[in-house]
Amino acid sequence: MVRKILRVDMDSGRVKFEEVPESYEALGGRGLTSQIVADEVPPECNPLGPNNKLVFAPGIVTGTSAPTSGRISVGAKSPLTGGIKEANAGTSFSQKMAKLGVKAIIVEGTKGDSGYRCLKIDSDGAELVPADDWAGIGLYDAFEGISAEHGEGLGICGTGIAGELFGGNSGIAFNDTEGMPSRYAGRGGLGAVMASRGLKFILVDDEGAEGVEIKDEETFNKGKKKLTDALTSHDVTKPGGTLNSYGTSALVNVINEAGALPQKNFSRGSDDRAAKVSGEKKSEEIKKRGGERPHRCSPGCVIGCSEVWTEENGENPVGVLEYESVWALGPNCEIYDLDIIGELNRKCNDLGMDTIEAGNTIAVAMEGGMADFGDGEAALELMEEIRQGTPKGRILVNGTEFTGQALGVTRIPTVKGQAIPAYDPRSIKGIGTTYATTPMGADHTAGYAIAPEIMGVGGEADPLSPEKAEMSRNLQYSTAVIDTTGHCLFTAFAVLDIPEGLEGMVEEVNGVLGADLTVDDIPEIGKQILDVEREFNREAGFTKKDDRLPEFMREEELPPHNETFDVPDEELDKVFS
Amino acid sequence: MVRKILRVDMDSGRVKFEEVPESYEALGGRGLTSQIVADEVPPECNPLGPNNKLVFAPGIVTGTSAPTSGRISVGAKSPLTGGIKEANAGTSFSQKMAKLGVKAIIVEGTKGDSGYRCLKIDSDGAELVPADDWAGIGLYDAFEGISAEHGEGLGICGTGIAGELFGGNSGIAFNDTEGMPSRYAGRGGLGAVMASRGLKFILVDDEGAEGVEIKDEETFNKGKKKLTDALTSHDVTKPGGTLNSYGTSALVNVINEAGALPQKNFSRGSDDRAAKVSGEKKSEEIKKRGGERPHRCSPGCVIGCSEVWTEENGENPVGVLEYESVWALGPNCEIYDLDIIGELNRKCNDLGMDTIEAGNTIAVAMEGGMADFGDGEAALELMEEIRQGTPKGRILVNGTEFTGQALGVTRIPTVKGQAIPAYDPRSIKGIGTTYATTPMGADHTAGYAIAPEIMGVGGEADPLSPEKAEMSRNLQYSTAVIDTTGHCLFTAFAVLDIPEGLEGMVEEVNGVLGADLTVDDIPEIGKQILDVEREFNREAGFTKKDDRLPEFMREEELPPHNETFDVPDEELDKVFS
Repeated sequence: MVRKILRVDMDSGRVKFEEVPESYEALGGRGLTSQIVADEVPPECNPLGPNNKLVFAPGIVTGTSAPTSGRISVGAKSPLTGGIKEANAGTSFSQKMAKLGVKAIIVEGTKGDSGYRCLKIDSDGAELVPADDWAGIGLYDAFEGISAEHGEGLGICGTGIAGELFGGNSGIAFNDTEGMPSRYAGRGGLGAVMASRGLKFILVDDEGAEGVEIKDEETFNKGKKKLTDALTSHDVTKPGGTLNSYGTSALVNVINEAGALPQKNFSRGSDDRAAKVSGEKKSEEIKKRGGERPHRCSPGCVIGCSEVWTEENGENPVGVLEYESVWALGPNCEIYDLDIIGELNRKCNDLGMDTIEAGNTIAVAMEGGMADFGDGEAALELMEEIRQGTPKGRILVNGTEFTGQALGVTRIPTVKGQAIPAYDPRSIKGIGTTYATTPMGADHTAGYAIAPEIMGVGGEADPLSPEKAEMSRNLQYSTAVIDTTGHCLFTAFAVLDIPEGLEGMVEEVNGVLGADLTVDDIPEIGKQILDVEREFNREAGFTKKDDRLPEFMREEELPPHNETFDVPDEELDKVFS
Repeated sequence: MVRKILRVDMDSGRVKFEEVPESYEALGGRGLTSQIVADEVPPECNPLGPNNKLVFAPGIVTGTSAPTSGRISVGAKSPLTGGIKEANAGTSFSQKMAKLGVKAIIVEGTKGDSGYRCLKIDSDGAELVPADDWAGIGLYDAFEGISAEHGEGLGICGTGIAGELFGGNSGIAFNDTEGMPSRYAGRGGLGAVMASRGLKFILVDDEGAEGVEIKDEETFNKGKKKLTDALTSHDVTKPGGTLNSYGTSALVNVINEAGALPQKNFSRGSDDRAAKVSGEKKSEEIKKRGGERPHRCSPGCVIGCSEVWTEENGENPVGVLEYESVWALGPNCEIYDLDIIGELNRKCNDLGMDTIEAGNTIAVAMEGGMADFGDGEAALELMEEIRQGTPKGRILVNGTEFTGQALGVTRIPTVKGQAIPAYDPRSIKGIGTTYATTPMGADHTAGYAIAPEIMGVGGEADPLSPEKAEMSRNLQYSTAVIDTTGHCLFTAFAVLDIPEGLEGMVEEVNGVLGADLTVDDIPEIGKQILDVEREFNREAGFTKKDDRLPEFMREEELPPHNETFDVPDEELDKVFS
């Protein structure tokens, strides 16, 4: 089956399948969304205005039987950072889209007077149908309701109330395997880009789909076996391994012990109470309550880092509580109660918000006096202000930097306007180098230096050493490639340590594309993607001055190591020099 | 008397007079504030953080008998634009400061736990005294009260509730000749920089002051006569001339007729109702009510463009209602009632806010649904939200762009984050070229192309012609020099047309400094100032991409001329190429 690009013009309501330009054929996922955004979106445009476009693309091998490859990338100019954005999620939505032969969806135009609409895609084609009735309704109910309306087992994505408010903190939710809105392309305000186009949902029905064409089955199968072997043998990714047993929250204790788990809006790097919200503790609770662990975000994942968190009685499932979410909504707000964190996470999912941005926003709001640190009930109420669209809610929905400015807070942990994730860069300088220099704004997934700096994966590096340009660059390049193949970033733990695994990943790609790439091509392909993204940002007005951490991280020491972020500007500028 | 620089360290509470470095000797006003900010403030710092500094400097001839020279410049890194900022006001404060030999005040450090303080300067020296009792109190009462406490006839400046909220829209108020807080260094959020240093007021008592030393009295007097002759003979500036008779509001009818008076958040360029708020109508009302017109902002002004607007019964004076204020708080919000506009202006003065930014903010808030266009009572209530520090108030106090983002509005009339003044750049392209390229953010006073484009002063230019780089550059250079001398920008109307007037201005400067500058030196001096400012912005991360008008002005036609802003980017980049 020949893959197509689906172009959706919200102004005219026209939906059109287009040939894939030759230059896009070997691209997928992030590589494809970033290239389309660079080709079609004027870098200086208003992200919520008529000239922005929203692009969805499954990875190259997504939809095949390649292990742990159910990722979808979403790209646009970000209303949060003002630069190019790719956010990705693991969900069966991506696999269904790929199986239908849709290589990318490009959504353009604006809502106008047409109200919100839903894009339905199936093996017969695509159409826009009215969806205005779902505006203002939480995404748990909306996903369930629209599913009931249009048929079970569909891939669903949607933007929530946060997107409808055009919030800088609004993500795009995708269905998990239970149909809940818990898988997020969360970062950078892409939900607002979707809402400002007037698109509320996309539904994908892959019944009768032909599936992804594999040009060289033998190579593909060889690669798939190598990668599967690597994933099932590495301590981090194997069945019963770290991620499978405790999920990403396994890091809570590790990072807290490293003095790098930010507490109270980045004012300390550790706290004894963090153990109360650790992955170990959470797994124990899930078992006791009858939730699910391990669990998979999408079919075909061999890692199974996900879970289903529930209320204490085992009811009202939330979905996964990731490490980042637990940290942001927990210790960073001095909240050390998994049930409160679970309910905050539920509200983020329901409103259509990124948990990292939301937790940072609450912490900054607490620093600005809107609530007390540690007051979980108050934090829950702040989320309800967003649901109501009150002035307070409109401040909060615009994220950490916006909230800090509204309240006159000067300790604002953001880079390029996007909130910093769960590793304090003063105690782990390589991840700080990535936060500063990735074109995405502060993003740990853009070049996960935690692997060598803390986990001893892919080599070992002293977290306190400021010489991290080369490491960050290499990780950023390889990450861009993984995000393009459609594999989950967590496959990196295995393939960084097991050369055959990496070979296998490349062979899978070769099998699908009929190409003959080698492992040695990875840095150059990664560089090409980063070059495209960085050029977009340059044209949008970014300079190396934007590749910096906030001033307070250079000046305020972080207990317990009492370190500042002392990576010289010259070292940061070396990442992409 | 040797002039000194007064350095005020809010951290230690230490106040120190320093020698003036040789390189600063020939500077004053904007030339001096911008140079000190460039020398002492790290361009990448957080404007509200500990590394910003606030600088006050009277012009070179301020405090002498030079006509219309009572200006003071205030400089810092702007919390509104993120770039360098100079805002200036006409007030006796500047003259008193100059007479005491204080060439500049540099305020550094932060509020810390010391509460708000007041800086008192007199012929014996300077000291910091507590001022916390005045926090949260409107500036009309505060100026009156602190005056009563410390002695009559003082120069006063202060930051208001808007500054205390760290608002991006917070100005610094100076006393008018009645002691009211109506003379504003309004733009760019300098009130927040003052408040974040913990400085609430500055009081200047010039009793016993030695006065400004004039090194060459003869040259000075010769120049003073030439400039006075020019000012008193030019139609715009002479007694009984345009400014003297109608104030700046004389422009309401003129610009409305030119189709360039923005109505309803820049959606139309004219409206018949504008006549209700014209300068002619206002002068008539002032006469009827027993207010004052003409009036002077500071002693020694020969133009007298100011006025005292009152309530209908002639009581409760507000101060001047400038053209910009009348437009921003009036037609741009579809409010065509001088009494409402007067009360809105009173609230701006009282809260410590720039009227241009406030009016644009209200208009954008109206577009975002926070109130209806034309609803004056609602607009007045919005200002009270700021006084109360409610979440709505905290949105509004941060200005136009912030409010637009909070409400999801995409038609936001700002450049570098600062709201566009009262001339729509789609109908008058030279002023648009200045808005785009001045390092200050949208600012009509940075290079007032309206003079040649509309008034036929300093030559004549077709307002619709897009070739305006050279004109804007020349005006920006000469403006920087006038802002450095301490003369009011309105002297430019006379000196642009009368060569002897310009000679006189230079001779006044030569007289004070003992220098031998000529008229031909003006462009180079202006260029040096702009170069310093633009280099600061470059180091703060600005590029030519920041020298652009908002996207909607390139795409939406403005009735009645149905023009877009079509000055090519290349033409904008030529201004300072």
